[in-house]
Amino acid sequence: MVNEELLKPKSIVVIGASNDIKKPGGNMLKNILSGGYKGKMSVVNPKEEKIQGIKSYASVVEIPETELAILAIAAKYCPATIKTLAEEKNTKAFIIISAGFGEGDEQGKLWEQEITETVNSVDGCLIGPNCIGVITESYKGVFTAPIPPFNPKGCDLISGSGATAVFIMEAGMALGVSFANVFSTGNAAQTTVEDILEYMDIHFNPETDSLVKLLYLETISNPKKLLKHASSLIKKGAKIAAIKAGSTAEGSRAATSHTGAIASSDMTVRALFHKAGIVYCSSREQLLSVAAIFNYKKLKGKNIAIITHAGGSAVMLADQLSKGGLKVPEISGPDAEKLKSFLYPGSSIANPIDFLATGTAEQLGIIIDYCEHKFENIDAMIVVFGSAGLFNVENVYNVLSVKLEICNKPIFPVLPSVVNAQREIQSFLKKGHIHFPDEVVLGKALAQVYNTSEPQPHKTSLPKIDIEKIRSVIDAASEGYLLPNQTVELLDAAGIPRVHEIVENSKEKLLKALGTMDFPVVMKVVGPLHKSDAQGVVLNIANKNEAAETFDILMKIDSATAVMVQPQIVGLELFVGVIKEPGFNHTILCGLGGIFIEVLNDVSARLSPISKNEAEKMVHSLRGYKLIQGARGKKGANEKIFIDIIQRLSALVEAAPEITEMDINPLIGTQRAITGVDARVRIG
Amino acid sequence: MVNEELLKPKSIVVIGASNDIKKPGGNMLKNILSGGYKGKMSVVNPKEEKIQGIKSYASVVEIPETELAILAIAAKYCPATIKTLAEEKNTKAFIIISAGFGEGDEQGKLWEQEITETVNSVDGCLIGPNCIGVITESYKGVFTAPIPPFNPKGCDLISGSGATAVFIMEAGMALGVSFANVFSTGNAAQTTVEDILEYMDIHFNPETDSLVKLLYLETISNPKKLLKHASSLIKKGAKIAAIKAGSTAEGSRAATSHTGAIASSDMTVRALFHKAGIVYCSSREQLLSVAAIFNYKKLKGKNIAIITHAGGSAVMLADQLSKGGLKVPEISGPDAEKLKSFLYPGSSIANPIDFLATGTAEQLGIIIDYCEHKFENIDAMIVVFGSAGLFNVENVYNVLSVKLEICNKPIFPVLPSVVNAQREIQSFLKKGHIHFPDEVVLGKALAQVYNTSEPQPHKTSLPKIDIEKIRSVIDAASEGYLLPNQTVELLDAAGIPRVHEIVENSKEKLLKALGTMDFPVVMKVVGPLHKSDAQGVVLNIANKNEAAETFDILMKIDSATAVMVQPQIVGLELFVGVIKEPGFNHTILCGLGGIFIEVLNDVSARLSPISKNEAEKMVHSLRGYKLIQGARGKKGANEKIFIDIIQRLSALVEAAPEITEMDINPLIGTQRAITGVDARVRIG
Repeated sequence: MVNEELLKPKSIVVIGASNDIKKPGGNMLKNILSGGYKGKMSVVNPKEEKIQGIKSYASVVEIPETELAILAIAAKYCPATIKTLAEEKNTKAFIIISAGFGEGDEQGKLWEQEITETVNSVDGCLIGPNCIGVITESYKGVFTAPIPPFNPKGCDLISGSGATAVFIMEAGMALGVSFANVFSTGNAAQTTVEDILEYMDIHFNPETDSLVKLLYLETISNPKKLLKHASSLIKKGAKIAAIKAGSTAEGSRAATSHTGAIASSDMTVRALFHKAGIVYCSSREQLLSVAAIFNYKKLKGKNIAIITHAGGSAVMLADQLSKGGLKVPEISGPDAEKLKSFLYPGSSIANPIDFLATGTAEQLGIIIDYCEHKFENIDAMIVVFGSAGLFNVENVYNVLSVKLEICNKPIFPVLPSVVNAQREIQSFLKKGHIHFPDEVVLGKALAQVYNTSEPQPHKTSLPKIDIEKIRSVIDAASEGYLLPNQTVELLDAAGIPRVHEIVENSKEKLLKALGTMDFPVVMKVVGPLHKSDAQGVVLNIANKNEAAETFDILMKIDSATAVMVQPQIVGLELFVGVIKEPGFNHTILCGLGGIFIEVLNDVSARLSPISKNEAEKMVHSLRGYKLIQGARGKKGANEKIFIDIIQRLSALVEAAPEITEMDINPLIGTQRAITGVDARVRIG
Repeated sequence: MVNEELLKPKSIVVIGASNDIKKPGGNMLKNILSGGYKGKMSVVNPKEEKIQGIKSYASVVEIPETELAILAIAAKYCPATIKTLAEEKNTKAFIIISAGFGEGDEQGKLWEQEITETVNSVDGCLIGPNCIGVITESYKGVFTAPIPPFNPKGCDLISGSGATAVFIMEAGMALGVSFANVFSTGNAAQTTVEDILEYMDIHFNPETDSLVKLLYLETISNPKKLLKHASSLIKKGAKIAAIKAGSTAEGSRAATSHTGAIASSDMTVRALFHKAGIVYCSSREQLLSVAAIFNYKKLKGKNIAIITHAGGSAVMLADQLSKGGLKVPEISGPDAEKLKSFLYPGSSIANPIDFLATGTAEQLGIIIDYCEHKFENIDAMIVVFGSAGLFNVENVYNVLSVKLEICNKPIFPVLPSVVNAQREIQSFLKKGHIHFPDEVVLGKALAQVYNTSEPQPHKTSLPKIDIEKIRSVIDAASEGYLLPNQTVELLDAAGIPRVHEIVENSKEKLLKALGTMDFPVVMKVVGPLHKSDAQGVVLNIANKNEAAETFDILMKIDSATAVMVQPQIVGLELFVGVIKEPGFNHTILCGLGGIFIEVLNDVSARLSPISKNEAEKMVHSLRGYKLIQGARGKKGANEKIFIDIIQRLSALVEAAPEITEMDINPLIGTQRAITGVDARVRIG
């Protein structure tokens, strides 16, 4: 697990160092030396006397005690070397950049295990194997380029893939994104992305630490740890964006062959990110756009002013913001007219504020001042300013640079002239700013950030349910689907309203029991899993005679064991459900029933426990939400009760974590009540 | 309209030329001179003797006859100057870069009109005003930078916005995208984007002309011209991608203030692009990614091999391709095993083909050879190859460069190391290639290209309908909604099956007429527009007595004029409709009825005339299509009949273009029949 020896080692040994800086061991040493590492440095290489000016030891046995060891030797030599370091050299941190371990064959897996056990036995930290290394303020322990200038307030980058970390740094540097600590976890034999995040959380100092964390994940080995520390960090003021690659079947297969990643469903990963407040990204470009946005002031409202000298970009950007749920509100009134008087004739101030190709730096400054101080319906500004190549735009970017610092409202600079204004953009970036080359790419990322909720509170108040009763049902149950009577007991204990029903396997008893029920009724076969497919559901049964006939028909269906009778309730079909994926909290699902699930896949998913606020958002995010509100002359369903049921379901699985799968489908909703009609519960 | 004088002028005059190259007139002249223009050049500027080494005329009256005039003088001087040029100097082509015309005030609009009339009177061509100019092989007539090296096989760019054209060229050049002719139409007083496309179509020579056309549009002033010439060009072998900005209400407002663009609905624009085979883009980045894809060989199937030394990029790319409907099929079998034997241990060939960080140029060559020649289930390759900074990757890119030329299957190169391999990427681009810096951005654009259909055939065979009858109804109709009996006649003449119904305003007649109809029936009020809202639809009427009661209730509704009775048909609710937007062919809509339209907006739209193939695709593209096929134990609707009805609707509006709005909602579909139950037709 991450320790001080990894982050600020007083001494480092590179084992397998080389004079050939095209070799990983050579380049690693070169990077540490030229990176200004101030501690004690030693190297091991039996073939050389000196490596890059440093005395080379022939064997690890000969080196002095060393806090951090970086191994660039063949996999097969690593276990013994690590053992010597751990047991004889008091080494507490290990980075293995070599490949040929768990990602390869069985032998490699065994070596990886052996090494992990050795490192664990001395409470040490192991990064890798099969990684590019680590960059901290203290040392530049990677064998790759580039090594971005260390900016303690830049982005921390934690990546499950070394090459991806490299490509992210390269693309980021071109935009002006700066970096602080970089960790490549490789096979993550011991230390995972989550572990590093945990360390960052526990030791978080908002004054000195980076506030932006970027993650690239192919597997989430400990979802609860990720959730806990990501939300904790965000609550303390950090911002996190992450790519979880392998979200599709094909991507997941690719991830498995790459790092042996274990697939989690994209739905559950998104639910976790949502709960934690992590911005979900799907590409390096998006991750970096979000990182750039994180580096600017926080967007606190959805109303954006677009300020530009180039109308086309403004039109495309307005389209994109609107698609993402942000607004480009009209600006009007006396202040708008005053602003117009400072601009050239033909300028438009209605928003976009287009101050024409001839617009000047002074005008830009005035426009920003108006947006900052006068236009109260504006929450943020996007300035699109390029160059047609006629004159230098450095003065414009200087104004922008100052406004970026002093304005309270966030300003996002789109500088599209990557050729004409190349020099001016570079000088803008050197002042520590970040730019967005494409307005639409920014617009998308901005909506992604704005639409990501704050982390959910750790303690959620859930409805009170009869936990004792629930435990007694669950403890008595065996694995597999619960019996109908057990299911009913669970629903009642959880306070989830359900239809009252009769289950009988004798016609006489059934007809007798029917005495208490209003017609029409529905009759369903008990036994077969898919009742509808087996024609095992009969509606509109009007009287006892019809019920008797139907009983005979249903009992003839294959694997029929009994018949269930329920009053026939009319209303809007709804659905709630639960899925449990390994390592994650239960995923709670809700939606409209019927075609909305089966044809349209219109389902909202969040991780339990679900707060009232979250349950509300789940319901509101459904594409078919209008039907719950009531549409097309039909009354909808009682939203408050639906939200309560979602929370009760969450309370139920918190009390009975053994539930691995559950659905109540349909629930029939009216304005007065929502009633569960059919439920299945599976115990894992 | 575009003419030879605009494209290859034998003589050019720049009016308002200057020695100050920071002024548009100065920079325009500089660009033409340094761009190697070989014709006769003259300039007008009363204040100077010589401009940039060329004798300057004091007035346009003094210049010799000149084919092309470029005006960089204040708007107010333009009308008279153009008149002199047109009437006395035999000038046939005019580019006005000055602003202050139609985009400004009323006076500007009048000047624009006057100029257009003058130019039209000599059959001349006018580009602008308020534009950056024109680049052709003959001359570089823009006042802006950059001026990309002219590549006759590069992209032709036609843009409604000058700055956007500049930004597109800048971003494109950085990727290696090259350009041929560039046109900025500005206010398009005379010549529009469509006009230029028309000229390109009529004079198209696949041997010498650019095959890639990029369009940036804020308005489509002549949709039919765009459709005609875009599809014609594509059929001749060209490829077209376009941005139509202003697709949302906010973007549309932005476009109006920018170039006075007239809004068309995004749905109809997409339908036009679909019909023409134009790839729909929403950003400069996407347009350029598509342009880059166009420059490579054509993707003929959906099966992609991802070849990489960096697993993470491959995982993200596989996710994106899969989301876009493309495939990353598994590669296996004896050939795959043979390929594996050439790679380092630990390499994966299952697809992605990951040949590890240590993978070599030779290995890349072998992998590509296998994909090209041995793996028949592979249609294209994406090669992701960056650099960790250890060694030069030029040899890898050289192999790639050769394979790009010789392979029949398309290869798309993702070169993510924009820092580490900057030099090697530049050298790769100098060989005439284009690279993609981000794998996911490529993946999205590739799906966009693959999912764009070929242009629809110009002649569509539509079902035979009774045109004579239709014309007699339409010719007799007045503007507004047709009467129920007229609507019925139209449907019958078009062969669109409908429910048989009785409309009566007397109870006695109604009850008499009911003699021929099976119960249960539906009764609907006639008169109010929104029957459902007015409680004007009553279902399940079981006998004549109930019918009589219901008649009385319905006739009490406000604006009730009669009552309609129909047999009550049970089945799947469907919908077809028509919208007519100015200048476009009729947009034909289809969908499932009810909530699918009103809540989910699940509607498919294409421009009339609709071929059978198109109608099929419309139906298949519905999110709720599974319901038509039959889902959840319910039988669906007869797809063939639905397709036929869509085509008949198309045939109807072709015969009756006066129809501006129409819907048949619902149509009730079963496996045997589809029957229109309610229809509205509006004549414009």
